[in-house]
Amino acid sequence: MTKPLNIAVAGLGNVGAKVVTLIQQQAEILEQRSGRAINIAAVSARNPSLDRGFDLTGLRWVSDPLALAAEPEIDVVVELIGGSEGPARHLVERALSAGKHVVTANKALLAHHGTALAEMADRHGCVLAFEAAVAGALPIIKSLREGLAGNRVREVHGILNGTCNYILTEMRETGRSFAEVLSEAQKLGYAEADPSFDVDGVDSAHKLAILTAVTFGCAVNFAAVHVEGIRHISPLDIAYASELGLRIKLLGIARRTDRGIEQRVHPCLVPQQAPIAAAEGVFNAVVADGDFADKVLLVGRGAGGGPTASAVAADLVDIARGRRTPPFGIPASALEPLRPAAIADRVGAYYLRLMVVDRPGVIADVSAALRDHAVSLESVLQRARSPDQPVPVVLTTHETREADLMGAVSRIAALAAVVETPRVIRIEQF
Amino acid sequence: MTKPLNIAVAGLGNVGAKVVTLIQQQAEILEQRSGRAINIAAVSARNPSLDRGFDLTGLRWVSDPLALAAEPEIDVVVELIGGSEGPARHLVERALSAGKHVVTANKALLAHHGTALAEMADRHGCVLAFEAAVAGALPIIKSLREGLAGNRVREVHGILNGTCNYILTEMRETGRSFAEVLSEAQKLGYAEADPSFDVDGVDSAHKLAILTAVTFGCAVNFAAVHVEGIRHISPLDIAYASELGLRIKLLGIARRTDRGIEQRVHPCLVPQQAPIAAAEGVFNAVVADGDFADKVLLVGRGAGGGPTASAVAADLVDIARGRRTPPFGIPASALEPLRPAAIADRVGAYYLRLMVVDRPGVIADVSAALRDHAVSLESVLQRARSPDQPVPVVLTTHETREADLMGAVSRIAALAAVVETPRVIRIEQF
Repeated sequence: MTKPLNIAVAGLGNVGAKVVTLIQQQAEILEQRSGRAINIAAVSARNPSLDRGFDLTGLRWVSDPLALAAEPEIDVVVELIGGSEGPARHLVERALSAGKHVVTANKALLAHHGTALAEMADRHGCVLAFEAAVAGALPIIKSLREGLAGNRVREVHGILNGTCNYILTEMRETGRSFAEVLSEAQKLGYAEADPSFDVDGVDSAHKLAILTAVTFGCAVNFAAVHVEGIRHISPLDIAYASELGLRIKLLGIARRTDRGIEQRVHPCLVPQQAPIAAAEGVFNAVVADGDFADKVLLVGRGAGGGPTASAVAADLVDIARGRRTPPFGIPASALEPLRPAAIADRVGAYYLRLMVVDRPGVIADVSAALRDHAVSLESVLQRARSPDQPVPVVLTTHETREADLMGAVSRIAALAAVVETPRVIRIEQF
Repeated sequence: MTKPLNIAVAGLGNVGAKVVTLIQQQAEILEQRSGRAINIAAVSARNPSLDRGFDLTGLRWVSDPLALAAEPEIDVVVELIGGSEGPARHLVERALSAGKHVVTANKALLAHHGTALAEMADRHGCVLAFEAAVAGALPIIKSLREGLAGNRVREVHGILNGTCNYILTEMRETGRSFAEVLSEAQKLGYAEADPSFDVDGVDSAHKLAILTAVTFGCAVNFAAVHVEGIRHISPLDIAYASELGLRIKLLGIARRTDRGIEQRVHPCLVPQQAPIAAAEGVFNAVVADGDFADKVLLVGRGAGGGPTASAVAADLVDIARGRRTPPFGIPASALEPLRPAAIADRVGAYYLRLMVVDRPGVIADVSAALRDHAVSLESVLQRARSPDQPVPVVLTTHETREADLMGAVSRIAALAAVVETPRVIRIEQF
């Protein structure tokens, strides 16, 4: 029998606790599938006396996580501390430098330092695995790096943040405002006390930057991600979307174009029948579009202890079996710099909602602005009429360049009859 | 640089041709992702002069596929001949015995001889890979064996045959009969001239038997699959399903129960909102339900040259990279015999459609038969009334044991007022 794989788990929050539970509870199947036992040689967390809902008896406690990188008998460090700097980064760097494999769920760390860490892993002949960093239980990293290895993937897009998807789903189903639903999500534990990381799109952008590198074999470039969140999405826009047969989702999209690689996170209008629209509530979903495979969709739980622990365990079994893949699918030295495509050059359809004072000539002025910027209209919805109050006018465009659309919107915003900042939402036809 | 991986492709039909095209066209990315070149050392097919729509120049032609197993410089045999016996089986057996890795898309071969071939592969230290045998482009074998390796999967179910899914989707969308839609599908090339393999559920059953072995770590047991096809599905049942908020899908289901493992392929009624119901037309979809991951859904193209070639290429890259996994996830020697659960012991809900002569007392007689077999009703639909012609009565039951339901159905079928064989369709709540 091959000797056990000795792992150390750093960070015993919700995910860390579930990882320990999984490894203990599934010891037998893990050994069968790995060809060797997986043994927890040490754990580390800030507070050893905290009740974590599972039995720590028999686990060796190391108070300084960085010390784990120096222990010769440890083969793999599982980093579940989180954060792009500080102890998480130091631990991963030291572990790789010491020739240890690293498994991490830390998307912020990879989004900011992924390329450098991949180079470090390659240099020391170590695995740097991060299935758990993107879309929880979905084996999306494995599917892109290995399952679709025969494809040039043209595009990957997905619902990468369960909190935002839950909020948008609830808003649609109940008609309530963003603020109301967010506050409820916080009570239910679906959203953090400080929700900005989720609702402003940062978490999705971290994950997208990782997906982009894996998909296109390029260096991780988080700074190049165009990011917008969901705070400004109103029940009115959700209702209009339904009327148009569309649904609002916060998507991360990475697309290869002639102008470079688009990386963007923002609310999108997608057709209700698009398979990705069926992923509701806390679920995540990712679509990869390969030149031979065509579109492959994965849907499942993107967060939570169990699903994330499942992904960590998959990485551990790969390491235990000796299955090796460079972090981003190809050697780090071969990762090309990402050439970003400017968002202003995006070509696609747009949804535009104006609040206008209902007086003669408004639509003519709006239409003229669009025409002058070469934007052609697909539909106009103006139903509610009120002599006293501003009424919504909803326009959808045919394919147009974003810079042209934005030029027209600036002119429209300046019209006297237009009383609020126009709302623009990109439409994606999948 | 590591030396190239030399492969031989046996069988140059639609899939074989696409595999050759893919390997030629994607040579550069395959080499980056594999760490070595993948080289087509030989091809073999019955008719060398047939126009296959691609350039065979430069490919070495071997007329006898079995000869490929004897060539020392060939590392991998890609078997795309098909069929559970004959040349395909001989080639795979000889190749493995000669210490060559085998990649195959042959579900019939694996369904009938999977365990023996896995033992042979293990004994000779070879890879036997078959991502392409189940659900085309979906990396479902990889996801089950590797991505969900930390889970005890409780159940796997899926739409495994695109032809049947296309027919059922068309029937629902157009209201036409099975025969009409089948004939159209044949004209479009979506169904074979002899469609029985698809529409009678055999193809789905082959794939399910493979999925079951991978999911539960048991020997492949095709004989234990309960198989029903879709020939008897009528537009009437499809219309009633819609009225009940359900959709008819031909599913393969493998489920671990206290009574053993259920393996069954048959038409199912599933809720319209079930994620799997969103897979329409020629698409395949598979759901795996893990104890840590929860439900993971994969959707994509299950057949066709490109998607199948994509799966073959993934297996080749795994081999080229040295990533090794036993064929069914654990060593063949550890695969336990599958203990089949009898279909008569299935516990679930049922849809029952009777054609009855509309006379007083019929419903009372039907209800009494159900009551006497301990079957309780969820709903009764009887709308059309006609003094002259039989009218449909549609019943749905609460959870009941299949043997009890069938006992009641036998008694109901014998009633004078019931003029056709009652139609029974199982309801699955996912």
